[in-house]
Amino acid sequence: MPQWRASSWSKDTALMGQSARWRMTVAYRGTMFHGFAKQPGMQTVAGELADALQRITQEETSPLIVCAGRTDAGVHAIAQVIHVDLVDPLPSTRDGERGPDELRHSLNRQLGGDISIIDAVKVSPEFDARHSARWRRYRYLILEGATPNPLLAELAWHVSEPMDVRAMAQASGAVIGSHDFRCFCRKVAGTTSAEPIVRLVTHASVDVVDTSESFDLFGGRLIRFEIQASAFCHQMVRSIAGQLVEIGRGRSNGADIVALLHSQSREGAAQPAPSHGLCLVGVGYGPEAGLPKGPISP
Amino acid sequence: MPQWRASSWSKDTALMGQSARWRMTVAYRGTMFHGFAKQPGMQTVAGELADALQRITQEETSPLIVCAGRTDAGVHAIAQVIHVDLVDPLPSTRDGERGPDELRHSLNRQLGGDISIIDAVKVSPEFDARHSARWRRYRYLILEGATPNPLLAELAWHVSEPMDVRAMAQASGAVIGSHDFRCFCRKVAGTTSAEPIVRLVTHASVDVVDTSESFDLFGGRLIRFEIQASAFCHQMVRSIAGQLVEIGRGRSNGADIVALLHSQSREGAAQPAPSHGLCLVGVGYGPEAGLPKGPISP
Repeated sequence: MPQWRASSWSKDTALMGQSARWRMTVAYRGTMFHGFAKQPGMQTVAGELADALQRITQEETSPLIVCAGRTDAGVHAIAQVIHVDLVDPLPSTRDGERGPDELRHSLNRQLGGDISIIDAVKVSPEFDARHSARWRRYRYLILEGATPNPLLAELAWHVSEPMDVRAMAQASGAVIGSHDFRCFCRKVAGTTSAEPIVRLVTHASVDVVDTSESFDLFGGRLIRFEIQASAFCHQMVRSIAGQLVEIGRGRSNGADIVALLHSQSREGAAQPAPSHGLCLVGVGYGPEAGLPKGPISP
Repeated sequence: MPQWRASSWSKDTALMGQSARWRMTVAYRGTMFHGFAKQPGMQTVAGELADALQRITQEETSPLIVCAGRTDAGVHAIAQVIHVDLVDPLPSTRDGERGPDELRHSLNRQLGGDISIIDAVKVSPEFDARHSARWRRYRYLILEGATPNPLLAELAWHVSEPMDVRAMAQASGAVIGSHDFRCFCRKVAGTTSAEPIVRLVTHASVDVVDTSESFDLFGGRLIRFEIQASAFCHQMVRSIAGQLVEIGRGRSNGADIVALLHSQSREGAAQPAPSHGLCLVGVGYGPEAGLPKGPISP
């Protein structure tokens, strides 16, 4: 396997000197980061990615990383999509196809395991990870059982009470469609609560994951909530997950979701579920994005 | 749910004043600890357990925790077994069966997720977590694939080269039976390499875990090595796992395992696999241990 080091990239950069847009699919363990967005003095996903790319390209300025869906502190991703403009480190005149894989391997070596680059492709400059995205899909995991599982402590919210999964699944259907989601969103700074926050949810489901092969849950169950929408507002998935857990516990019901959506107010809504159960699992793009591959999904 | 605090336990302790032996099944995420055994100034599983128990019982001395299989730094467990003698904090005159569950819940609240008590049972003083154990079972997980998975970074060893799982499975059979395992053990301090280290392996297998429901492995596979023996010597499972990965990569074969066992020397053996892929998954006891339940297994 050829080893690319910073010095070899640097030489090629000097040869090429042209900027190109890259799309990358990225996975990360949110536990390790203060969210996606770069923040001074904080360990963030964008910050680590930018640092690793800057070490490889040896450019003077840190590259700007644009993502499909900003994730909060503690939130994971298995298929975040980003774009970044790099002064082309790849000599296209030799082994055209080998380059992207080497950039990916070089990045993965730098990132050391808590962030992982699944693919890296040169794309048209019109592609925008955020604005070209047609949908995002999130998963929220709940471990239901008397005994917490240390091996899943970072990946699922442990709820010790038994839950009615069928009631949760039925109630989840109430968010499908185009609704004003103010009741399940944190208000954006500088906006008033009078402004509607309309989002189109195209999928919502609750089921029990078959973990028989991969995890011993000490008699418990792993409950999975998945939701897909054109876009989300801040804390939307965690707020709906929190409401669904209240429904599973029998303290709320599907009609409450309908009433909350009509109320256009957070009053009476459940607390948002904790961030560590949440994972961004897919982002979809249309053909106009000029992607060499079809939509990305988990 | 009744909440037991240190003060209520303390009152009962004063009422009872009798010592009883407890057996507990314990799970933990090894990443967080410098191994099982208590070490001054280090965060260890036994140290955390002893501290939590001392806070609950309010005894002056820290209780001694004896385990079935000491695990190294980074090694996980889903079914470690311990025994500990506690001045009985449970008033047996009322709700005899409720007490152990409350001790368990109280401990789990104190331990905060990285260690979990799966069960806690009062047992005969003849029961000894270490000496009564008839077998131990370990699992070693290997993630084979081009892309590391951040969500499994702490639980599986990532190997980027493709592996021949059938060759690994066949070779694993060579360790079954009673052998001198010096070639796969770290020498115990104060012993010479001339002393045989005989262990009886009753099960060894390699297979691919079906993760389709629970993990997206980005095209990779999760390979599971499981081994059960009367007892293990230090680094035995990790050394065999390291050898099996060399076999999977085509750099060694089953005959090498037979030759290594005959050689009674570590020379030529593979490097031990890293600790974070290893997990203690079960311990078995016979009926003479006076256990209220049958053998413990994952």
